[in-house]
Amino acid sequence: MAKKVNVALIGYKFMGKAHSNAFRQAPVFFDLDVEPVMKVLVGRDEAGVKAAAEKLGWESYATDYREVVNRPDIDLVDIVTGNTSHAEIAIAAAKAGKHVFCEKPLAMTVGEAREMTQVAEKAGVKHCVNFNYRKLPSIQLAKRLIDEGAIGRIFHWRSVYLQDWIVDPEFPLVWRLNKAEAGSGALGDLAAHSIDLAHFLVGDITAVTGHMETFIKERPVATSMSGLVATGSEERAPVTVDDGTIFLARFANGAIGTFEATRFAPGHRNGNMFEINGSEGSIRFNVERLNELEFYSRRDPAHAQGFRTISVTEGGEHRWINAWWPAGHIIGWEHSFTHQVVDLLEAIAQDKPATPDFRDGLRVQLVLDAVERSAQSGQWVSIEKE
Amino acid sequence: MAKKVNVALIGYKFMGKAHSNAFRQAPVFFDLDVEPVMKVLVGRDEAGVKAAAEKLGWESYATDYREVVNRPDIDLVDIVTGNTSHAEIAIAAAKAGKHVFCEKPLAMTVGEAREMTQVAEKAGVKHCVNFNYRKLPSIQLAKRLIDEGAIGRIFHWRSVYLQDWIVDPEFPLVWRLNKAEAGSGALGDLAAHSIDLAHFLVGDITAVTGHMETFIKERPVATSMSGLVATGSEERAPVTVDDGTIFLARFANGAIGTFEATRFAPGHRNGNMFEINGSEGSIRFNVERLNELEFYSRRDPAHAQGFRTISVTEGGEHRWINAWWPAGHIIGWEHSFTHQVVDLLEAIAQDKPATPDFRDGLRVQLVLDAVERSAQSGQWVSIEKE
Amino acid sequence: MAKKVNVALIGYKFMGKAHSNAFRQAPVFFDLDVEPVMKVLVGRDEAGVKAAAEKLGWESYATDYREVVNRPDIDLVDIVTGNTSHAEIAIAAAKAGKHVFCEKPLAMTVGEAREMTQVAEKAGVKHCVNFNYRKLPSIQLAKRLIDEGAIGRIFHWRSVYLQDWIVDPEFPLVWRLNKAEAGSGALGDLAAHSIDLAHFLVGDITAVTGHMETFIKERPVATSMSGLVATGSEERAPVTVDDGTIFLARFANGAIGTFEATRFAPGHRNGNMFEINGSEGSIRFNVERLNELEFYSRRDPAHAQGFRTISVTEGGEHRWINAWWPAGHIIGWEHSFTHQVVDLLEAIAQDKPATPDFRDGLRVQLVLDAVERSAQSGQWVSIEKE
Amino acid sequence: MAKKVNVALIGYKFMGKAHSNAFRQAPVFFDLDVEPVMKVLVGRDEAGVKAAAEKLGWESYATDYREVVNRPDIDLVDIVTGNTSHAEIAIAAAKAGKHVFCEKPLAMTVGEAREMTQVAEKAGVKHCVNFNYRKLPSIQLAKRLIDEGAIGRIFHWRSVYLQDWIVDPEFPLVWRLNKAEAGSGALGDLAAHSIDLAHFLVGDITAVTGHMETFIKERPVATSMSGLVATGSEERAPVTVDDGTIFLARFANGAIGTFEATRFAPGHRNGNMFEINGSEGSIRFNVERLNELEFYSRRDPAHAQGFRTISVTEGGEHRWINAWWPAGHIIGWEHSFTHQVVDLLEAIAQDKPATPDFRDGLRVQLVLDAVERSAQSGQWVSIEKE
Repeated sequence: MAKKVNVALIGYKFMGKAHSNAFRQAPVFFDLDVEPVMKVLVGRDEAGVKAAAEKLGWESYATDYREVVNRPDIDLVDIVTGNTSHAEIAIAAAKAGKHVFCEKPLAMTVGEAREMTQVAEKAGVKHCVNFNYRKLPSIQLAKRLIDEGAIGRIFHWRSVYLQDWIVDPEFPLVWRLNKAEAGSGALGDLAAHSIDLAHFLVGDITAVTGHMETFIKERPVATSMSGLVATGSEERAPVTVDDGTIFLARFANGAIGTFEATRFAPGHRNGNMFEINGSEGSIRFNVERLNELEFYSRRDPAHAQGFRTISVTEGGEHRWINAWWPAGHIIGWEHSFTHQVVDLLEAIAQDKPATPDFRDGLRVQLVLDAVERSAQSGQWVSIEKE
Repeated sequence: MAKKVNVALIGYKFMGKAHSNAFRQAPVFFDLDVEPVMKVLVGRDEAGVKAAAEKLGWESYATDYREVVNRPDIDLVDIVTGNTSHAEIAIAAAKAGKHVFCEKPLAMTVGEAREMTQVAEKAGVKHCVNFNYRKLPSIQLAKRLIDEGAIGRIFHWRSVYLQDWIVDPEFPLVWRLNKAEAGSGALGDLAAHSIDLAHFLVGDITAVTGHMETFIKERPVATSMSGLVATGSEERAPVTVDDGTIFLARFANGAIGTFEATRFAPGHRNGNMFEINGSEGSIRFNVERLNELEFYSRRDPAHAQGFRTISVTEGGEHRWINAWWPAGHIIGWEHSFTHQVVDLLEAIAQDKPATPDFRDGLRVQLVLDAVERSAQSGQWVSIEKE
Repeated sequence: MAKKVNVALIGYKFMGKAHSNAFRQAPVFFDLDVEPVMKVLVGRDEAGVKAAAEKLGWESYATDYREVVNRPDIDLVDIVTGNTSHAEIAIAAAKAGKHVFCEKPLAMTVGEAREMTQVAEKAGVKHCVNFNYRKLPSIQLAKRLIDEGAIGRIFHWRSVYLQDWIVDPEFPLVWRLNKAEAGSGALGDLAAHSIDLAHFLVGDITAVTGHMETFIKERPVATSMSGLVATGSEERAPVTVDDGTIFLARFANGAIGTFEATRFAPGHRNGNMFEINGSEGSIRFNVERLNELEFYSRRDPAHAQGFRTISVTEGGEHRWINAWWPAGHIIGWEHSFTHQVVDLLEAIAQDKPATPDFRDGLRVQLVLDAVERSAQSGQWVSIEKE
Repeated sequence: MAKKVNVALIGYKFMGKAHSNAFRQAPVFFDLDVEPVMKVLVGRDEAGVKAAAEKLGWESYATDYREVVNRPDIDLVDIVTGNTSHAEIAIAAAKAGKHVFCEKPLAMTVGEAREMTQVAEKAGVKHCVNFNYRKLPSIQLAKRLIDEGAIGRIFHWRSVYLQDWIVDPEFPLVWRLNKAEAGSGALGDLAAHSIDLAHFLVGDITAVTGHMETFIKERPVATSMSGLVATGSEERAPVTVDDGTIFLARFANGAIGTFEATRFAPGHRNGNMFEINGSEGSIRFNVERLNELEFYSRRDPAHAQGFRTISVTEGGEHRWINAWWPAGHIIGWEHSFTHQVVDLLEAIAQDKPATPDFRDGLRVQLVLDAVERSAQSGQWVSIEKE
């Protein structure tokens, strides 16, 4: 019988649902070396967490994360709370010797992220930040093509992360639009994903210059929120985060890049897209068609070159797909979470580093911070060392 | 506490995995009026069914379906066995007063399908055939647009179901290429889906004329098969089913249609596609991009008309989506099974007809049969009444 | 100085404009071995043809084609009149020893087409029918890929030619909807192009079975028409041609095919599309994106296969493109006519056969005729020998 | 008879061919109030210009532009020489009282562009700079949608102009890669077009910050060039222009934008693309599919919103299309030049301003200059007033 890994999940809203699904599905679809046990779901509101635990398949629930992270029967602490409490919980868990899995962005500040990384590394536990898009078969294929040399020397990175859910000026001021709770707006929520993908696929960013914009300055105060559906009151308050952010970047390997993240792009529900151009070829991706990867090769015969749309659903060829369905039977967004959990459990089972880890989360945080500072100063800002 | 519906699943290969997932996911993501209980998994090979039951989350396993369908604690029998045993099991289950859910194609022959329908209707149980593509939010949207009049009078149906997994002549003679086990090839496996969608969206077909082709006449005899990966021996045997089938159709409402189903279309892994043209607009769909529906409206301003690509992922707007993720966070192929199970459980809870039911399965069988006869006679064949 | 080829163009409406453009542009963009001289434009209405000759760049005009085709200074007779007079004029011209270029469809009947072919072949003149889509660089690339073996053994042809300009039932009964003038509707106007492309790319068709439909049975009588804009009266008369036609085909090489041509497909202005699937790969094309060809190769690495969109605009690689603009600077629909004229003039200069010739036109006519007969009999009809 | 406008074209290479075509086609396809006469082609190499004049349809040729611009029979001087001589010729022509049409970029420096503008305005002649993409029906439709309010308040501009013709490091150092002749690289050649489109569709840019990169620092010296095909020697010399440039922009109306221009994007032959997002909808465009415009409207019914692909080929609806072919019969890149000439001749005939004029050219030059300065200083640079 496989060794058990007892999991505590802290938080149970949207991301709690996605993480729970991942832990529930991983052992059914994959042959794992360890068996995750959905031990306890943690939340401050007892009625809420009790109902969620039952619905989402957790053995029990609790209301005090401090107690839970110190329980001897817990092996892995998964953090999907608001951004403001990531650091506190992760540090407590790591100090208690637990493996830690944390939603992105890793922290509110570089300082927090650095401390989390240092504590986790010192504790010798597995630590992992959920930049889930890395765990799509299509992104893994992009990485493979780059590693194989099919793209060659990279010249350009070009990413946009486009959403449109707050274009209506009457959409209320939910927590994601409040700097104290969210840290930043489109930057930390969306560009963070693009930065991590750029790190993964292109390499280190050395300097950035950016601009952050809040198109709608005031909004109705939110009175309730369920998912992305919120109700507003007659009172208005200022929006304190960026609606959209754009920045330029230089990479250590000589590539140059553009980044954009916005919630003001009508027609794009979750348009996390990028393109990479190199001396041998190009790659394009859009998370709204996450089962596909577009690839152009300069090595194709000269009369027959063109971007090809690869259906990244071949069991024998594309990572993780074998566990699911036959070719052409597409997977969904949540499968990236399942793959992340599979990877993390494998890291625990084989005692090897999890990826992306807190240091990767810190690297993203350093770029987010530099973008904010460049937006204030109007100048290029170099990225600090981790 | 919701009333329980105890389920027995007969069969545990590829489709067993997909059905198990649906029963496991339905109560987590949806608020159901009844609670499905994954009671027993049934298969003839004890070792195999035991391992599968454990992996897929069934409470127990059994090796004799006859016994199981007569157990008083079983409410719903789900049949995912080979096509040859659908009729036998479904009839036994219905006669035992169980609700019956059956994979497509419903039966090997019109006779079988008719008997299954009559027995199930007489028994007064819920009966449902798994033409799962009906249960995609995008197909539901297509139906809604048609019902709203946005397409107007329908002129054309145009469907292709394109796969490419047996183009290699060395791919072995697996059961799907053997008439005795599969009934037919691309026709029953693939065109059956297109016919059901045409019935659902356009209406009754009145006559067809078709052609069936076997491009590769002999193949290596299969020695083993796991999923779609098979190993062949040096011995060869004739392929007894169609590699590809094409047919023309006339509909009761005056529309005309073309159908094609093939496993010989390189570049298409699971290209279940159709287009409908009507007096007010058009609709296009491809299951490889199942979260999207293309829609053209002649009612748009004359200078701004064009096919629009709808992301069918809006919780408040598109059916079933609310249960999953925010807009633009796509769902996968298997979600159609979950939706089918949700629908079926709702039909049981509310004592209303399930859809598509055995009569719908019979309607498809009648068309499949007519296509085969027209391919033999070279003449148009009228579709019999159910 | 290059030898001159004096041209007479019979007809001056829509197609007259397109042919005139081709003769005007060919010598400017291409280095020709002979120089076309736009000698005389011929039409029955003197005022109309005089104005057109001036506008379109013809040296002179005339009103009697019989006289013109017998003028000793005329080398090439180009026929763009209504379909009913193609045969008469082409036969007169060929008998007068003139090279003949004729719009498609070649004739009203198989009999006419056969006589035209026999007369032209006997006269030893160059004869050419304007299936202009053959002369797109993208179609030439498709042919090259097939000839290179990149598609392998062909299994499937699948073509649709979709338009939508008569969906409105109040659109008047213009000549194209009148069997006496047009011969047939969507069949001869649209499917003729698809059949010629199938002949060019796949090979001979051996048998067909089809269905022809007239969705709108009566329309207002047309009182005037300019281009595709027509005015209708209060009087109504029956539509005597097909609004849409569908048919199945078998090819001599074992491939099977589907064809559809309709003017009732909202959203498609001129959607001449096809796909070919073979043992090594596939090809897709749409004339509304005529600078592109989609190509899938089973020879690509297994993890990186997908339909690629080739921009068929590379001067050094793609036929005729060198004469125009740099890569990515697309050409238009009318360029296919220029290329056809270049080819024809080259055939004259080098005394080699023009393509497609009248025999190709006859081959199309034989299929059109067989489709009509199959639609009447409800049975497969074999294609006669030329 | 229409009044004649006698044209002198200075320069006869690639752009000479495109401009000649425009003057040749304009009076054939459009009903003009004035008649352009292709009077004289001017070039320094007598043999070359003589041959070109004959080929391209000019009545005569000359070798000294100074003489020509002072000829009393010349009404319009069209300048397609290298960028270094635009100012000198345009100023001479305007001072001689001739209307002036000039290729983009207008000048080598802001100073030149400002002087050209002042001289031309003072002379009271028509002056026009050939930002030809404005003259595509699709771009006119974009403008119309914006003017109608269909996009609402604009939030984002996002443009890339991607080419790939110099990715090979052995491609020689042609004039476009030499700062002394070209002024800049991708910036002036490509981004200039994007900037003009942004001005036309969004409005004034107020500040920019950018980065310019030369990926390949040295190349073989070019020994000959024909079109884009060049031969290199063994000698190498430094590339003195940007291979790729990226910049951020703020607009006067509060929108923010990103721009990228590069010749290092494999797979993109001439990918001049942009997207605009506003409070009511979005627009997307790609010049490689210049007959299409993508449009998203937030005003569509909530269940049926999506980017629609408009075929901008409707005679009655889309500008200039009526002159060409029926809907769906696409036009090519060169047609934009014909439309520009039609517009310019109409401005002359009706004595109204031509668009875009030299002041528009100056506005672009001011942005190009600011981008270069920001790339040097690493700071945002405000755009000067014209």
